[in-house]
Amino acid sequence: MRNDNSQHLTPGALPSSMQLTREGQLKHFLTIEGLPPLLLEEILNRAEQFLDLPNKAQNKAPVLRGKTVMNLFFENSTRTRMTFELAAQRLSADVVTLDIRHSSTSKGESLLDTIRNLSAMNCDMFIVRHQHSGVAHFIARYCPPHISVLNAGDGYHQHPTQAMLDMLTIRQHKKEFPPLKVGIVGDILHSRVARSQIHALTTLCTGEVRVIAPRTLIPAGIEQMGVNVFNNMEQGLDDLDVIIMLRLQKERMQGGLLPSEREYFSLYGLTEERLKLAKSDAIVMHPGPVNRGVEIDSRVADGSQSVILQQVSNGIAVRMAVMTMVMSGQATEQSLL
Amino acid sequence: MRNDNSQHLTPGALPSSMQLTREGQLKHFLTIEGLPPLLLEEILNRAEQFLDLPNKAQNKAPVLRGKTVMNLFFENSTRTRMTFELAAQRLSADVVTLDIRHSSTSKGESLLDTIRNLSAMNCDMFIVRHQHSGVAHFIARYCPPHISVLNAGDGYHQHPTQAMLDMLTIRQHKKEFPPLKVGIVGDILHSRVARSQIHALTTLCTGEVRVIAPRTLIPAGIEQMGVNVFNNMEQGLDDLDVIIMLRLQKERMQGGLLPSEREYFSLYGLTEERLKLAKSDAIVMHPGPVNRGVEIDSRVADGSQSVILQQVSNGIAVRMAVMTMVMSGQATEQSLL
Amino acid sequence: MRNDNSQHLTPGALPSSMQLTREGQLKHFLTIEGLPPLLLEEILNRAEQFLDLPNKAQNKAPVLRGKTVMNLFFENSTRTRMTFELAAQRLSADVVTLDIRHSSTSKGESLLDTIRNLSAMNCDMFIVRHQHSGVAHFIARYCPPHISVLNAGDGYHQHPTQAMLDMLTIRQHKKEFPPLKVGIVGDILHSRVARSQIHALTTLCTGEVRVIAPRTLIPAGIEQMGVNVFNNMEQGLDDLDVIIMLRLQKERMQGGLLPSEREYFSLYGLTEERLKLAKSDAIVMHPGPVNRGVEIDSRVADGSQSVILQQVSNGIAVRMAVMTMVMSGQATEQSLL
Repeated sequence: MRNDNSQHLTPGALPSSMQLTREGQLKHFLTIEGLPPLLLEEILNRAEQFLDLPNKAQNKAPVLRGKTVMNLFFENSTRTRMTFELAAQRLSADVVTLDIRHSSTSKGESLLDTIRNLSAMNCDMFIVRHQHSGVAHFIARYCPPHISVLNAGDGYHQHPTQAMLDMLTIRQHKKEFPPLKVGIVGDILHSRVARSQIHALTTLCTGEVRVIAPRTLIPAGIEQMGVNVFNNMEQGLDDLDVIIMLRLQKERMQGGLLPSEREYFSLYGLTEERLKLAKSDAIVMHPGPVNRGVEIDSRVADGSQSVILQQVSNGIAVRMAVMTMVMSGQATEQSLL
Repeated sequence: MRNDNSQHLTPGALPSSMQLTREGQLKHFLTIEGLPPLLLEEILNRAEQFLDLPNKAQNKAPVLRGKTVMNLFFENSTRTRMTFELAAQRLSADVVTLDIRHSSTSKGESLLDTIRNLSAMNCDMFIVRHQHSGVAHFIARYCPPHISVLNAGDGYHQHPTQAMLDMLTIRQHKKEFPPLKVGIVGDILHSRVARSQIHALTTLCTGEVRVIAPRTLIPAGIEQMGVNVFNNMEQGLDDLDVIIMLRLQKERMQGGLLPSEREYFSLYGLTEERLKLAKSDAIVMHPGPVNRGVEIDSRVADGSQSVILQQVSNGIAVRMAVMTMVMSGQATEQSLL
Repeated sequence: MRNDNSQHLTPGALPSSMQLTREGQLKHFLTIEGLPPLLLEEILNRAEQFLDLPNKAQNKAPVLRGKTVMNLFFENSTRTRMTFELAAQRLSADVVTLDIRHSSTSKGESLLDTIRNLSAMNCDMFIVRHQHSGVAHFIARYCPPHISVLNAGDGYHQHPTQAMLDMLTIRQHKKEFPPLKVGIVGDILHSRVARSQIHALTTLCTGEVRVIAPRTLIPAGIEQMGVNVFNNMEQGLDDLDVIIMLRLQKERMQGGLLPSEREYFSLYGLTEERLKLAKSDAIVMHPGPVNRGVEIDSRVADGSQSVILQQVSNGIAVRMAVMTMVMSGQATEQSLL
């Protein structure tokens, strides 16, 4: 096994090895960065098995029966919270959701004390959503060894389950990653989704990954992640197989980065006309919720090339897959002790 | 099968046929209006079977095991939400409750996008509560065919499960509807409960249905629904078998419709003395929560003729009945495809 | 059986017999006061059996399957609410949590009407947390006989499950109570936890129970509960086997009782140096959340003598124990009717 302990513990360079057991099984799911391609493919394969479940008469899998999953949402996200809750329920886990904004932390308790206390309640898994980068890693580092941590979005850093549901959606339509040209359009600078997608796409050996955005919304040095940068939408869309639109994070945008929503749409909005620049069978993705008329035209969002709702369905399956993998990682580790 | 598509799609004239499958089974439960009497009786019969459940050692029915029920409460209602949650849990469904006031809709997502996204999470049933009339119908119209929608109250329009639990309570005490005189007292104008009760009572061939209220609280043309209007409380109560008091919806009342709570009580409050005007075995009903001393005297609310708490218990049984019926309606429809 | 009906119904003198069935089994769990020592020991013994559960592959006990537990939290407490929710879930109960601050009571409904309505939903158990003393007793008195009430903290009065998890923690480390010297340090005046601990410790025949606090934080006449009062921290700690630190309830403290947090810590904070005054194998307890540097030094809270996190784990087991006992008390009573 690799040992990344020498790396600095800034959010940009966290030791990816800490999310694997000594046998290389998934123990936490914090970031895509550093995970081997086979492991990503195992997530996709498992998720596909779960996709059939809801249509069966008996669609409750007893895999996590007797396990306790705690949703720790320091930042509000109804949709992500629900998909994790549903995933855990369908695996028969006990689920408790903690809206931390209203909890003991408001009584002055530190994050570390909160985590220690929740851990002491015989919890098996934390789902963590936080507005600051690195919090899921922090919790994984300091919680007891029998607990797995799943990152449900941390600051501008990572949102790995979102990236994997996107990969699943791409694979369902395009089969193989190496021949593909994939473009990510929008606010790359503030997007944990984009960061995780780039890691996943490059790990899966995607032919070309582009980021398409105004200069003000592209982080410095992003080329080092293995992507090509386009500031012109038309040039960036040319010949793409997959177009991933990002949500314009109005609540994250700081003044002055963009002139107006209208101008943004005129320059980077995905219209039917622009869509024709991509391959004729290109698929259009978006993590939701969609700002219609801001980053994407309604006719494209609802059009035949849009796979946006399929992404949502895939989200539950991917989360079920990751949950079962970290729990079996735990079981293996314990049987080896 | 009837085809009501020619009707206008205003809340007052929605196509009732859209809530039935082609075989006449219940698929959605949006309004009482237009449902055949036999179907209402089937709801009552099923509910009576469930009423015995909680006293048994094993009171979990596995009917909805593996199904996902989503409570979509755009308007707050603790009591109604809890009875639906409990009904779904007792049928072994997975239940997720979404307080929409705090969800993605606040991020600017449209209702239609919210529904499409939730539908994509492999949901089987939406329970919808909304402050605007017609929202449950709207959702039923635009959600995928495998999802059933239950109206848990929409604006001033309908509250069909409330009406059916009232019918169950009446039947438990009075056996047959045709010989009965039933009076509904209070704010008819703003009451979705009253509207649904009138539809249910007339469908079940109740002998006489009266509405009793000041002129300002009676909608124009209500006589066309088959009711007799009384503005005098004493005359209205005369010889009644069933007295249904409505909650004075303080939060809905707009200025000027009523002089004061005290004057309302003096004219329309149900006192022990006024109760004597009805039949000696008349039952007193109220959908709750009760405003004691405003629409009803405490001695009547807690008296021997009050069946208010029985209504609450019946509420869970009726909701279990409707949930099982729409799910078996779904199953039949799918097997026919 | 005792009959305490002659006692006054103030929170300080509630009839403890009302929480026992005629056969002496636990029916409600409202206060430690007046409960026989054997019953407290049965709670501890049952809790120890549950402590092994989470490590087993199949850790769901079906004891409360088909039962409905309602969490009624009139006062916010994330931690206590979660431990009760988890305890009920692990016993396979249906659980509904009601944040009463946002419920019908805000529509003007009385507490009694709320309780009657919830009772009518075929509920089996109420978990009650309220900022006013005596509310759990009030509910137990007026709810139907088939419902059990568990007090999860009422005003300054009692927090009996917290006291029992503390007793379990002490017994795990010290085996027997009679030889022990136990000190409770801090805001005794405003602490329901202290009150319940004192009842539990004296019922279990603890050798000596001390309360250690400034005069302003000690209620008048507390010596009558069988405790020794110390205003000097050093003298109070001398030779203790168990040190129970209380949380400084900042939100409850009224102006003028204490000069400053810093001065409080300098006089009553538990430091490593002061800890040496107790026995060398003394354990340090705290109900949480901890105010580090106010009532306790971090090195002590995280030190080898601290059992604070063990208390948290014990909390779920004790609540499972009490839940199963009140439900079997119910069953016995019903079979005798």
